[in-house]
Amino acid sequence: MSDLEVTATPGTSTIEISRSFATTPERLYHAMIDDELQRQWLGPDRLTTEIEINEVRDGGRWRWVQKDTDGTEYGFRGVYHGEPSVENGITRTFEFDGVPGHVSLETLRFTDLGGGSTRIDIVSAFMSVEDRDGMVESGMEGGMEEGYVRLDKILADS
Amino acid sequence: MSDLEVTATPGTSTIEISRSFATTPERLYHAMIDDELQRQWLGPDRLTTEIEINEVRDGGRWRWVQKDTDGTEYGFRGVYHGEPSVENGITRTFEFDGVPGHVSLETLRFTDLGGGSTRIDIVSAFMSVEDRDGMVESGMEGGMEEGYVRLDKILADS
Repeated sequence: MSDLEVTATPGTSTIEISRSFATTPERLYHAMIDDELQRQWLGPDRLTTEIEINEVRDGGRWRWVQKDTDGTEYGFRGVYHGEPSVENGITRTFEFDGVPGHVSLETLRFTDLGGGSTRIDIVSAFMSVEDRDGMVESGMEGGMEEGYVRLDKILADS
Repeated sequence: MSDLEVTATPGTSTIEISRSFATTPERLYHAMIDDELQRQWLGPDRLTTEIEINEVRDGGRWRWVQKDTDGTEYGFRGVYHGEPSVENGITRTFEFDGVPGHVSLETLRFTDLGGGSTRIDIVSAFMSVEDRDGMVESGMEGGMEEGYVRLDKILADS
């Protein structure tokens, strides 16, 4: 059982996500930025993921392409704001090729819960309530949790 | 008289700004990204501005430092998301050194109103209602308009 919480208060334009993982802050941070680990865990399950660009630094660009079994491609891209680190977290922009110009800002922070457990807190800020609602209605939460379950396994096995 | 409109609906975490200028979209865009022009027009009036970094490209970093007459410095920085252009506008992150970790996302778009007039529409998305309210209460609107009045003059004189 996961303790995933996704909060999208009606009328606001943010999504707040929190979840704990049975690992240290350092290892969870690494899983969020490492090319090969991201390729393995990013959900949803029905898509495969390629990390095309991953410049983990202030101003660095990132780009993932996810593929459906029928070959349909979904591209996502953005840039890192500030130098990512386990202490300061990760701040990056996010844009889906399918709705160009609708950019959001995502902050990931890592809290050591002790006992080998770490909580991630994510805030995504959208340019409008409509953009935020569109993301919620895309089935984001289910796909995210499918990925996090894969990440649980990777962390347990490594 | 300026037609500046600043909208910050209570309970939301965005600020919407619009204002028209007696110039073309190309010239207004240029004034928003050019080092020397930004140095000249950025408000508020009581501060001087230095453009320390201005990499106008996808992933490029920017940094301004504003100085008070007593030498107090206010630093601002961020990164450009996507390739800035007059057609697509400018999307960039924004962080004030004084409240590190409180990052926002800003989109500037340019609409040709005809007759040598252009409207700029800016949306700023904050990570929380509190961050947004903090920006509004900082006196942002007055300082912005002081800068825009200077920009009006620069555009009229050039």
